[in-house]
Amino acid sequence: MSKTQLKAVLTQDQLPTDYYNIQHDLPEPLPPPLDPRTLQPMSPEPLLRLFAKECVMQEVSTQEFIPIPEEVREAYLRLGRPTPLYRATRLEQKLGTPAKIYFKREDLNPAGSHKPNTAIAQAYYHRKEGTERLTTETGAGQWGSALALATALFDIDLTVYMTRASYDQKPYRRTLMEVYGAEVHASPSSKTSAGKKFLGQDPNHPGSLGIAISEAIEDCVTHDNTKYALGSVLNHVLTHQSVIGQEAKLQMEEFGEDPDYIVGCIGGGSNYAGLAYPFMRDKLRGRSDAVFVAAEPKAVPSTTRGEYRYDFADTGETTPLIKMHTVGHSYQCPPIHAGGLRYHGKAPSMCMLIDKGFMRSVAYTQNEIMDAGLLLAQTEGIVPAPESNHAVKAAVDIALECKRKNEAKTILFNLSGHGLLDLKAYEDKLANKLIDYEPDSAALGKALESLPVVR
Amino acid sequence: MSKTQLKAVLTQDQLPTDYYNIQHDLPEPLPPPLDPRTLQPMSPEPLLRLFAKECVMQEVSTQEFIPIPEEVREAYLRLGRPTPLYRATRLEQKLGTPAKIYFKREDLNPAGSHKPNTAIAQAYYHRKEGTERLTTETGAGQWGSALALATALFDIDLTVYMTRASYDQKPYRRTLMEVYGAEVHASPSSKTSAGKKFLGQDPNHPGSLGIAISEAIEDCVTHDNTKYALGSVLNHVLTHQSVIGQEAKLQMEEFGEDPDYIVGCIGGGSNYAGLAYPFMRDKLRGRSDAVFVAAEPKAVPSTTRGEYRYDFADTGETTPLIKMHTVGHSYQCPPIHAGGLRYHGKAPSMCMLIDKGFMRSVAYTQNEIMDAGLLLAQTEGIVPAPESNHAVKAAVDIALECKRKNEAKTILFNLSGHGLLDLKAYEDKLANKLIDYEPDSAALGKALESLPVVR
Repeated sequence: MSKTQLKAVLTQDQLPTDYYNIQHDLPEPLPPPLDPRTLQPMSPEPLLRLFAKECVMQEVSTQEFIPIPEEVREAYLRLGRPTPLYRATRLEQKLGTPAKIYFKREDLNPAGSHKPNTAIAQAYYHRKEGTERLTTETGAGQWGSALALATALFDIDLTVYMTRASYDQKPYRRTLMEVYGAEVHASPSSKTSAGKKFLGQDPNHPGSLGIAISEAIEDCVTHDNTKYALGSVLNHVLTHQSVIGQEAKLQMEEFGEDPDYIVGCIGGGSNYAGLAYPFMRDKLRGRSDAVFVAAEPKAVPSTTRGEYRYDFADTGETTPLIKMHTVGHSYQCPPIHAGGLRYHGKAPSMCMLIDKGFMRSVAYTQNEIMDAGLLLAQTEGIVPAPESNHAVKAAVDIALECKRKNEAKTILFNLSGHGLLDLKAYEDKLANKLIDYEPDSAALGKALESLPVVR
Repeated sequence: MSKTQLKAVLTQDQLPTDYYNIQHDLPEPLPPPLDPRTLQPMSPEPLLRLFAKECVMQEVSTQEFIPIPEEVREAYLRLGRPTPLYRATRLEQKLGTPAKIYFKREDLNPAGSHKPNTAIAQAYYHRKEGTERLTTETGAGQWGSALALATALFDIDLTVYMTRASYDQKPYRRTLMEVYGAEVHASPSSKTSAGKKFLGQDPNHPGSLGIAISEAIEDCVTHDNTKYALGSVLNHVLTHQSVIGQEAKLQMEEFGEDPDYIVGCIGGGSNYAGLAYPFMRDKLRGRSDAVFVAAEPKAVPSTTRGEYRYDFADTGETTPLIKMHTVGHSYQCPPIHAGGLRYHGKAPSMCMLIDKGFMRSVAYTQNEIMDAGLLLAQTEGIVPAPESNHAVKAAVDIALECKRKNEAKTILFNLSGHGLLDLKAYEDKLANKLIDYEPDSAALGKALESLPVVR
């Protein structure tokens, strides 16, 4: 049959048994979170009011491998793990590149993205610890629908605060969450004092992940038997996503390949960390010289134009401060279709790796990334999420660079989600209606000036 | 790991090498198509104006196995074949049934349904025969998006006539087709004389597959270098779908099971025939006593309330007459969300098998099948297409019957597509807005009376 192997699949028995925790291998310990009142290092205890105890333990753990509970592995199987890894031969041919392009399929589960990898783990730990209700925020709705799915499987009530820009652009993401039994509010909402504050400033406020986080946390701490789940940024979330890269390593070996470039998109950083960190482990140990490329939107250029410094994780200034690349928590993220990338900061471990030169990042406009999405759709037949199109664009650029240099490199990117609930983005692209937002230096500077100075 | 096996996956090498053609095993030859003018048996030659030569050959072939071209197998691999087969243990537990419920996943390719199985084959044969442009019809948009995907892969232009009911309910199905490069018109349209006729009768005509077929055929025969592709009903289409059941047989063997009940939904009949016929082969040879159950909507009860007789395949009376279960080609199908099941007739081979008692059929209302869909979503996490929910409902009913009789039977159903582009149906269901259409006997009688009498 086909001379070329087009995909690598894994059996039920090849599902990873442990999560990989990058904190074991970082060049130095992560800077501690700071108390928002004293700006002094804080202990993890206060986090117990919000998160599952097991997640708080994982947040500060430097243990290399953390066993995946059997109930979580069973849910992974039910929802489609292990996921296949494909080679994009038609895209290679279209580009006329000597490079080989591979991509991991995180779009094939019912929520349509990588998010269930941590949603299932968090829902399981909460169920085990007796949590009856969860609150969370969502951007494009990928995280919200993933957690709605996970809480349906583990019988927990869920309230979701969805950024208004996405709530209005993607009504069916809301329906999907409701199909799974979740309650969904557009954020900023009138349900919380934080939400009311922003609605007061602008009744048509498009919202942001930062604001939605403030609302979800306020809802959590003001209700009994209620806890909170976050879909990205935090260490334990990135750790749960490591199943992606562990599977991808086995699959690239099946292809007889060792990737030269490992590519993904970054909003909070979890889908890319999920793919990249099991490979980064080798690099941090001097066993690999693979190049790691993270792609973000020019509209929210945290790592390409922001600063590496302490900032709040939310816009309402209620969370601990963490050291990360940020455009400032008060930066108003433009309403791009890649709602999952509308976050002012990025994951601390990833920011450290970028700061120390183990990883590089690039930024693209909406039109650039949607062109890449149309190219993948018309060659490989797959319609990616706008977020994932940032990864496609970065992989295409690298493949074209290989063409210029005539280098037969191997590129691996993460297809973090499908675009079937984001077709409005494609409709706007085909109608030439997409706006390329780019902040001017003044707007960025203003948001950064407002940050607390940590001595 | 999990004591229970939850899924069976196949490798690239286990992709079927041949299509299975049920005509080799039918109890008697299919009644011949009749010329619409003379009502006399007609030769297949006129079909060559519409279809690929290879498809016309397959249409009348009684050859048991037809080799699958390598280019087609490669496209199948690229788009996700072989597809996994799952066991629904959480659904079993929720129902408290001793029965085991398995389902084949035809929802995991980029078009989201079983339709690419024949779209790819037809597009390949047309490409090989030099066709530059294709026309077709689509109901819910599953077939249209599948053919748009396939023609993108094989570089053929495509014009799609989409039933207005679905065109209005599912705008993003249209965008998906356009992402793949297709031109899409709501049907009835002003592009054809057939369309104008129905628009004249009712400017808000919801359309039907029968009308859209008339428009697509008229567009085809009135343009040069243009041919036509049909997504169901015809023998060659059902033959291409046989990859589903061939894979499912291998996978059920891997589970150590031989299904007692084989279940699916029927619009034209292709997804169900695809799953069922490789198993039916054994039954027709006296080697199996499996029960075959086909589910259709009460709004379009072709096999449960229609008659087994000669009728036109289209509403415009332009096609040959074929012998099938029909509610009459002039029957106006209500605008149910399961747009893919809004067809007055069914596949001739399937109708013969129902008529001779090898297969039974059942009918359900919109609210019944959407309840079943919500049940599957909240237990297995998967959101099926409204069409597929007819199969889910039938499987659930059988499982509950097994519970009453305390019989540990094995049920296999075809999850023919996902509902991510049909979330309006779920939105309406959750808002209690779904209408249960059921034709009265007078309406059905009227449509049947108008049929030509064949002596």
